[in-house]
Amino acid sequence: MKLLITGGAGFLGARLARTLLAKGTLAGQPLSQVVLADQFPAPADLAADPRVAVLTGPLLDQCAGFAQAKFDGVFHLASAVSGECEADFDLGMRSNLDSTRALLDALRAAGNKPRLLFSSSVAVYGPDPAHPLPDVVTDDTFTTPQTSYGAQKLMCEYMVADYSRKGFIDGRSARLMTVSVRPGKPNGAASSFFSGILREPLAGEASVCPVDATVSHPVSSPGVTVRSLIAIFEASAEDFQGRSAMNLPALNVTVQQMLDALEAVAGPAVRARVKFQRDERIAGIVANWPKGAKALRAPRLGLQPDANFEEVIRQYIDDCKAAGLESTALKGL
Amino acid sequence: MKLLITGGAGFLGARLARTLLAKGTLAGQPLSQVVLADQFPAPADLAADPRVAVLTGPLLDQCAGFAQAKFDGVFHLASAVSGECEADFDLGMRSNLDSTRALLDALRAAGNKPRLLFSSSVAVYGPDPAHPLPDVVTDDTFTTPQTSYGAQKLMCEYMVADYSRKGFIDGRSARLMTVSVRPGKPNGAASSFFSGILREPLAGEASVCPVDATVSHPVSSPGVTVRSLIAIFEASAEDFQGRSAMNLPALNVTVQQMLDALEAVAGPAVRARVKFQRDERIAGIVANWPKGAKALRAPRLGLQPDANFEEVIRQYIDDCKAAGLESTALKGL
Repeated sequence: MKLLITGGAGFLGARLARTLLAKGTLAGQPLSQVVLADQFPAPADLAADPRVAVLTGPLLDQCAGFAQAKFDGVFHLASAVSGECEADFDLGMRSNLDSTRALLDALRAAGNKPRLLFSSSVAVYGPDPAHPLPDVVTDDTFTTPQTSYGAQKLMCEYMVADYSRKGFIDGRSARLMTVSVRPGKPNGAASSFFSGILREPLAGEASVCPVDATVSHPVSSPGVTVRSLIAIFEASAEDFQGRSAMNLPALNVTVQQMLDALEAVAGPAVRARVKFQRDERIAGIVANWPKGAKALRAPRLGLQPDANFEEVIRQYIDDCKAAGLESTALKGL
Repeated sequence: MKLLITGGAGFLGARLARTLLAKGTLAGQPLSQVVLADQFPAPADLAADPRVAVLTGPLLDQCAGFAQAKFDGVFHLASAVSGECEADFDLGMRSNLDSTRALLDALRAAGNKPRLLFSSSVAVYGPDPAHPLPDVVTDDTFTTPQTSYGAQKLMCEYMVADYSRKGFIDGRSARLMTVSVRPGKPNGAASSFFSGILREPLAGEASVCPVDATVSHPVSSPGVTVRSLIAIFEASAEDFQGRSAMNLPALNVTVQQMLDALEAVAGPAVRARVKFQRDERIAGIVANWPKGAKALRAPRLGLQPDANFEEVIRQYIDDCKAAGLESTALKGL
């Protein structure tokens, strides 16, 4: 299996690559090569793996070479994030819509009908006067996105579905829930604080929550997210059930519940590092997002959400320890 | 009002232009100029109107000039049809997706937030294993298109919605039902026979119906369709209710009911000119289309479907007479 991971140097892409390289197989085939394509350089541990090839640059420029590369499988994770797309419309159209189309056209030109997983997002949902948003969205909820990021992801879902229907690729789209706790630095996503209010206090830093504590949101841990991506990639077309996008399992939590879990796991001093200061821009975007989600099809593939948010925080702490980051990422404990 | 009609030389575009020029106003403003953009030359009667300017060529090439033209309103009807898009994937992507995006970008560059009506289609609906198609689709039915034409129309709907949300245009999408009876020649649309089995016998010619008589389909007459397009263009954003696409009113009829109506209006000799000969390609496409549709939002704008199919046929006969085409289009009567 010759595999391409776009966004392969990013947090999720790198975690996915590490998981797959450790496993050694994907969909029953040995992994012969894993190409990590990203605008940023790949982490050193991945670049050092003899099975890994690193491509650094804009995806739109890389796609031309993908026809000849004849990948057997693709995880398409590369994306501009929600905040960026809202601030720079053209950037979003180029990074999300144009790049996805160029990738699909390259895979089509390769002629070997590669399997592709496209990472879509819960951001495809939004409230519209004719289609009010239910409190809990499902795979079947009518999609009226209220961000450019969500609109672009949705257009790409339909493109992946049609390229698959035509037999150009064997594609499937998975709608990711907001991933928490993300390691590293805050990013341009409007949802960045859903990790920041946990990650920063654990590292001993102050953190500002830009929305009210009552805000509820569907999240999934990095572990559940990566496990789900692999299972959806490996599913047969029959088990995937058609070509419309599949929602990933979600744990629906309020900001208050996240902070209560933080206090339960890490103590009141850590919890006390989070202050509330409303940011109207962020709060406005988040207000148009679902309060919760329920995956209807994912359980057929054996996929379940995180059991509770305490476990999500413990997963993050364990990950930091395993990476030897106790002295930085966990110095607030 | 400086108005652009893309596909303005086509059957619907020309009928819309004639209706508007006769009315003299649109959305309460006098029509100062109507630009008919089409790959084919505009009909002579329209070209002769001093308020009309004709642009002949591919829409994709014309769009560059539209930023400076600063239109106040746009009816975007130009499109490759379903059969063409299924036979030539790249043609469909270029004619439908790329051209619509180029148009929206030109209108955005103009900077005057013009009003735009995008003509989408009932072809956005289709059956999917996870989302079986109800017998009667509504504005709220989950969309899983099973043709490239339908997928492209749907992607354009979401693009129009997001360009509108961003304030680049004041856009709205209307999902047209299959228009019957279309005058003229058969076209590349898989739905072409929904007009052919009426038009050809009325003209004294034999006609082949490629699907079973039990096939049911949502249709609307040219008169109802054009009236609806104008009403949706003229509706306030509040009356349009959000940014998702609005279904046009539909008359749900079977092929049998169409032929019964033909016999009732034109007699058994005319009806007898239609023979059944199944075409698997056409039948396969049509099998994935809705059997009926119901418009939930259109009645708020005062829009109603045709009362029955006899009236639809009488409208066609009256139109042919008004155009002086009795000796050709109606010579079978």
